Amino acid sequence: MHECDEFFRQPELAHLPTHRRRNALEQLEQTRSYTQTAEEILIGAKLAWRNHARCVGRKHWRSLKLLDARRVRSASDLAEVCWQHLQMATNGGAVQSLITVGPPRQADGREFRIVSPQLIRYAGYRNGDGSVTGDAANVAITEFATKLGWRGAGTPFDILPVLISTPDEPIRWFDVPSELAKEVELEHPDLEEFAGLGLKWHAVPAVSNMNLEIGGITYPFAPFNGWYMGAEIGARNLSDTSRYNMLPLIGEMMGLDTRHERTLWRDQALVELNRAVLHSFRRSGVYIVDHHTVAKQFCDHVEREEAAGRTCPTDWSWVNPPISSGLTPTFHRYYDPPDLDIRPNFVRRS
Amino acid sequence: MHECDEFFRQPELAHLPTHRRRNALEQLEQTRSYTQTAEEILIGAKLAWRNHARCVGRKHWRSLKLLDARRVRSASDLAEVCWQHLQMATNGGAVQSLITVGPPRQADGREFRIVSPQLIRYAGYRNGDGSVTGDAANVAITEFATKLGWRGAGTPFDILPVLISTPDEPIRWFDVPSELAKEVELEHPDLEEFAGLGLKWHAVPAVSNMNLEIGGITYPFAPFNGWYMGAEIGARNLSDTSRYNMLPLIGEMMGLDTRHERTLWRDQALVELNRAVLHSFRRSGVYIVDHHTVAKQFCDHVEREEAAGRTCPTDWSWVNPPISSGLTPTFHRYYDPPDLDIRPNFVRRS
Repeated sequence: MHECDEFFRQPELAHLPTHRRRNALEQLEQTRSYTQTAEEILIGAKLAWRNHARCVGRKHWRSLKLLDARRVRSASDLAEVCWQHLQMATNGGAVQSLITVGPPRQADGREFRIVSPQLIRYAGYRNGDGSVTGDAANVAITEFATKLGWRGAGTPFDILPVLISTPDEPIRWFDVPSELAKEVELEHPDLEEFAGLGLKWHAVPAVSNMNLEIGGITYPFAPFNGWYMGAEIGARNLSDTSRYNMLPLIGEMMGLDTRHERTLWRDQALVELNRAVLHSFRRSGVYIVDHHTVAKQFCDHVEREEAAGRTCPTDWSWVNPPISSGLTPTFHRYYDPPDLDIRPNFVRRS
Repeated sequence: MHECDEFFRQPELAHLPTHRRRNALEQLEQTRSYTQTAEEILIGAKLAWRNHARCVGRKHWRSLKLLDARRVRSASDLAEVCWQHLQMATNGGAVQSLITVGPPRQADGREFRIVSPQLIRYAGYRNGDGSVTGDAANVAITEFATKLGWRGAGTPFDILPVLISTPDEPIRWFDVPSELAKEVELEHPDLEEFAGLGLKWHAVPAVSNMNLEIGGITYPFAPFNGWYMGAEIGARNLSDTSRYNMLPLIGEMMGLDTRHERTLWRDQALVELNRAVLHSFRRSGVYIVDHHTVAKQFCDHVEREEAAGRTCPTDWSWVNPPISSGLTPTFHRYYDPPDLDIRPNFVRRS
């Protein structure tokens, strides 16, 4: 009740007729749920983005678009909605911030949801010697998909199927139509042999395993995306030792002295990998932002929020990039503390 | 009273005779102060180090040495003690963790203290066009020293005098004897022209403007040092835009494309500057640690503390390096939250 009441008192909803809040509260009290309008959901999703303390891309919260899929019920139809999301979000490379909202959690607790962490993720296969082919972060979900009957080709960049759970069917998997999974093959602006590593990454980061909570209603099916900051790919996905762990290979390729940490060969390889990511996305016409630019944009955003009289709950450790953080303005300031209870918001499933 | 009681109940003081705690408490109640033994101060200073949430070098807390200068009273004698500190700490390049403890704050609140932020700091001179020659962080203290009568040569690396405040004298300044201020001239392992930048840095980081608080007693005169982590110099002091801001010059020297952030020229220049720092210190025989190694050591420390049944209050944003943080193990974990009230500790003067 409290969240519903609070939601309809947000200034962004001040233009609604005064009886709307009362009606929603009454319906919520009588049925434990109520039906939001598409406009309310879009505003709610924008506020969820604006409230999310871990997101450094919040300057663009007003630009979010909504794909309203609340009437879709079957897993296969929900998969079709995911493909539509990918097409609209990819937008031929001019990546568009988008959220798709499916059926809300039912009053009896039953849910429609995507089990996969993102719409596009690469499989990870545990080899006999304990090593992993592909993305080591996705070994468990790869094994789960395999148990459901999916078969991956076994390359380092097999796109996992999207796993969808609905109240009336067992979890089902759906292969992403290949023409919808735009990818960028990585090459380096100067190092010719870099392309020989055979690295690539997908164009759209669409998180699909968080609940969207708006005004007392939970939408477990709510994949959303912005665009990539280069360092997410170059300084985490491809470089983390628990992901693709590419730096030793890149360091070797560059002929660096990898015997001692003090040569900073890891740091050198990291910068070149990140240069390759930004260079390749740009060359492929896929929008991406570097960590310097996004940090400036975020500091602008924080100041704008302050000028608007709003707090901007922020988790310092999440908004600072994993590479050269000291060079970004986000490093040199404090923020309003993260507020885990603020709503609307995107919330990790428990 | 509480802090005193708590201090003497620390396991590290369990070997003291049982009446010691009672005596200290009685003396504190009667005179608002009590006299600690040198052993108690050394143990207290070690615990202060161990408790300090912002320090990534805490693995070595047991190795701290004490220079007991509590009987020294005049500013000039305290300056002599600072020189002794620098000599012992520099230790010919094999930098030794050391704390010097001067007279405690008196019951009437009067203090002996060092006004300078560190024993060795470079002056910053504001030029007519608003630019700064030297360390821009030290413009205010440079102007203050100048008002007191000090005259700097006007180079980018003039070592500031140590400013000392005592109850019975006006603040006095003392030039650091040049043979005690060990410095390292920076050169790069590969880029020959780097040495032409004329950069250098001092060997010992000795923080001198924090209060040491032990068992209810405050020591405002308590300069302490560990050794440098390379990134403190290469990824903050020499690279911050509000410090020496050297990256544009280094980027130009390297022939990088500085027109766009997306070329990551800043990141490239940053890595090479940091390589120069580590290389030059090592070549000069001055101990320094790289951010990869110190991060591993810190994670070891956190685990050891946990195994010993102790918490390890830690500020994530301070223990992660300003360069390539995602490559260090400190990045990928959470910590016990910082505890500002825990004592003994080093405390910023208000």
